[in-house]
Amino acid sequence: MAAGTLAHLSPLDPKSPEPYYRQIYGRFRNAIASGTLNPGDRIPSARALTQELGLARGTIDAAYGLLAAEGYIQARGQAGTMVSPSLRPRMPVAREQPVAATPYTPSFRPDSILPFQMGLPALDVFPRKIWARLGARAARAMQPIDMTHPAVPGLPALRAGIAAYLHVSRGIDCAPSQVFLTSGYRHTLELVAQALLKPADRVWFENPGYPPTRELLAAMRLAGVAVPVDAEGLVVAEGLRLAPKARAAVVTPAHQSPLCVSLSLPRRLALLDWARRNQSWIVEDDYDGEYRYASRPLPALKSLDRDGRVIYAGTFSKVLFPSLRLAYLVVPEAQVERFERTQAMFAGGSPQLTQAIVADFIAEGHFARHIQRMRRLYAERRDATRIGLERVLGAKVRIDEQPGGMHLILRLQGRRSDRRLVARMREEGLFAEALSDWAVDRDIAPALMVAFTNIDSTATAERLARRILPLM
Amino acid sequence: MAAGTLAHLSPLDPKSPEPYYRQIYGRFRNAIASGTLNPGDRIPSARALTQELGLARGTIDAAYGLLAAEGYIQARGQAGTMVSPSLRPRMPVAREQPVAATPYTPSFRPDSILPFQMGLPALDVFPRKIWARLGARAARAMQPIDMTHPAVPGLPALRAGIAAYLHVSRGIDCAPSQVFLTSGYRHTLELVAQALLKPADRVWFENPGYPPTRELLAAMRLAGVAVPVDAEGLVVAEGLRLAPKARAAVVTPAHQSPLCVSLSLPRRLALLDWARRNQSWIVEDDYDGEYRYASRPLPALKSLDRDGRVIYAGTFSKVLFPSLRLAYLVVPEAQVERFERTQAMFAGGSPQLTQAIVADFIAEGHFARHIQRMRRLYAERRDATRIGLERVLGAKVRIDEQPGGMHLILRLQGRRSDRRLVARMREEGLFAEALSDWAVDRDIAPALMVAFTNIDSTATAERLARRILPLM
Repeated sequence: MAAGTLAHLSPLDPKSPEPYYRQIYGRFRNAIASGTLNPGDRIPSARALTQELGLARGTIDAAYGLLAAEGYIQARGQAGTMVSPSLRPRMPVAREQPVAATPYTPSFRPDSILPFQMGLPALDVFPRKIWARLGARAARAMQPIDMTHPAVPGLPALRAGIAAYLHVSRGIDCAPSQVFLTSGYRHTLELVAQALLKPADRVWFENPGYPPTRELLAAMRLAGVAVPVDAEGLVVAEGLRLAPKARAAVVTPAHQSPLCVSLSLPRRLALLDWARRNQSWIVEDDYDGEYRYASRPLPALKSLDRDGRVIYAGTFSKVLFPSLRLAYLVVPEAQVERFERTQAMFAGGSPQLTQAIVADFIAEGHFARHIQRMRRLYAERRDATRIGLERVLGAKVRIDEQPGGMHLILRLQGRRSDRRLVARMREEGLFAEALSDWAVDRDIAPALMVAFTNIDSTATAERLARRILPLM
Repeated sequence: MAAGTLAHLSPLDPKSPEPYYRQIYGRFRNAIASGTLNPGDRIPSARALTQELGLARGTIDAAYGLLAAEGYIQARGQAGTMVSPSLRPRMPVAREQPVAATPYTPSFRPDSILPFQMGLPALDVFPRKIWARLGARAARAMQPIDMTHPAVPGLPALRAGIAAYLHVSRGIDCAPSQVFLTSGYRHTLELVAQALLKPADRVWFENPGYPPTRELLAAMRLAGVAVPVDAEGLVVAEGLRLAPKARAAVVTPAHQSPLCVSLSLPRRLALLDWARRNQSWIVEDDYDGEYRYASRPLPALKSLDRDGRVIYAGTFSKVLFPSLRLAYLVVPEAQVERFERTQAMFAGGSPQLTQAIVADFIAEGHFARHIQRMRRLYAERRDATRIGLERVLGAKVRIDEQPGGMHLILRLQGRRSDRRLVARMREEGLFAEALSDWAVDRDIAPALMVAFTNIDSTATAERLARRILPLM
């Protein structure tokens, strides 16, 4: 495109809190999502756009860099820059997976903090003093009206705080009334099923994937369909082949759980297209979308949802801490009433006190600061952990390159059993997880999953690795 | 009986914290429940037992008075005192009730405190300073280990505190491991259904009864069976006629919700007998068992459960406050593992902070003191409300005599529509409930239900009554 195509983009807003590069990035993304720009369309070179907009070259480079990193655009040398031609889903080959009947025991969440334990943020650096101060203040401020039945979907101040946060950090535009508080991911998924699904409905889930998802689907008498994951995330085409008429899909687009790959833009668009045509639901489990280290966090899939098919599921377990028991979902505007009715039927709301503390924590800026601090810290701890493990374990493992997440994936070289190794490690008080346990397909390459969030240095990682070595 | 029967009773314990009259009462109750004493059996006169035990006459009178008030024994003049012959269930006549399809809207729990509003304790007198102090302390005390996933069934200290409390005040013997915390009655009932029932199972519920029970059963795809309630509580014989093979029964034995009558001993035994023979479950919803004014609180039905068929459901919403979102259930020992598995599947546990505060509140004696204070206060407020309403409304209403509860039942004389009156009252900011809305049988006598817990004096009640009068 030249000026002609740029005319389709809405003008930049000098008063927006979003920096220009984010605005440019967002404009292109929306133009692609809405079909204004199509796969293969040429777009101006960074230099041309710099001139056209009268902005610094660095601004345009940052926007284009982000668009390229996420698969939206490609630089083609002489041919210029274009919208990625691969934005149509390809058709990878995969086998149909039978759903495992054996339940995954919730042993991965004991009331303890063990080395490598997944699902825990860095608890040692949580701003507990600030938290205690806000907690004491909220407890003192409690009036009789705060003691009555809380609004079931959540405290208005907290819903508003979440909506504002999602707008800035995840690119989601929603009203506070679309935000529903829950007591955690399991409650979230249950609420979605209660509101939108009925027994025997088919639901895609990721394979490998977070075991509670497939267990919950089965426990709720839904027919789970295991859809494989590859380097671009959920293989949408395979879902289409296995169960084209499924009523819903549960996905982890930001950093696939557990492989940490991001769902590529072509896949995102294919998934949205399927949901639109089929009137199906997409549950976007965005449990750690903030923790991306290669670039700024990707906007949520929900930010591309033009047809009201995406239910966005967030949680405070990873960005604050799990014992808060607070998670939330954002539902399409047209579904607000249905979720209000369903939640009022099955739930009584979350405690006023914890909600009030979190609302204050967000409103006073502690939340944004904490997440930024954690993003930097986790990038450091990830590198430290990787280096420490590689130094000691050497060629016995190959550690995946991945853009984000809260754990590393250690591929076991030589086809050892990851389950046996994990069992031995647990006897030694080391709490890794076996990738095989997260897969329905038993042929998956053996790998350990080890969280790095609570590993404070390379030295610590080396020390831990030396405890693993004799077990391998 | 003379000494011969007494020999069947276990000896009194001079070191027990229970006063002798409670011990005697308990021994007789257990002897009746276990079949050692049968309906129609003679028991010693109070005078004879006084001599035999060497205790003060007042002690025996107190024990016999309690046993008589609860229907266990009867004084028959010359014939002496005997175990009530009516301890076999009678067969009252009732019609089969179709289950209402119209949902009861949860409009009865707005985020406000309106006059007469049901389900709220006296919020004005809650010890908020103590609460705030414990809250601040718990927030300050939070360590990293307290931030991990909490034990799903609940904090050990809280489960232990609840078990000890139930032993003393509700006559329930259970281990802390049998106690499961939930986020409220709805969550409790859902958990029971998830653990023990399957779709299309038939479940008795009380008619009239707390509307969410029948709604939840329907929402969970269970087949609710409306069983009538009379002056002795649930008409068990009618349940046996309507659905003898039902898988469960949900009952409110202490003060039936909403009629406030107590489930009589014959009915209790008949219900337990049915559950035992049929291997069915009894859910005892003991939402306000503490608030009995005529005598000491009745022991829970669960205290008579010899066969592990009763699931006891308690809540902190009435004895502390609703926005805590903490309730609990006690499950039979043989079901502990099943509930552990089920709860781990569907729920993530309650927030650590609120649990820690309640555990401290119980451990430091504030809980027992608060309940005792409230029992006295509610007795006063009930009398004040009754007097104030009767002074103004006079012959237009007849107020039920009832042994406990947190609301009064105002029978409308002259067959006015309670629904229309309630609608008018709500327009005036008065939040009564219509008994008709709580019944599946639409022929129920019209009555208002008005909570007295937040009405502080006769003058207040009169003032409120003067606002009702023109609407009648």
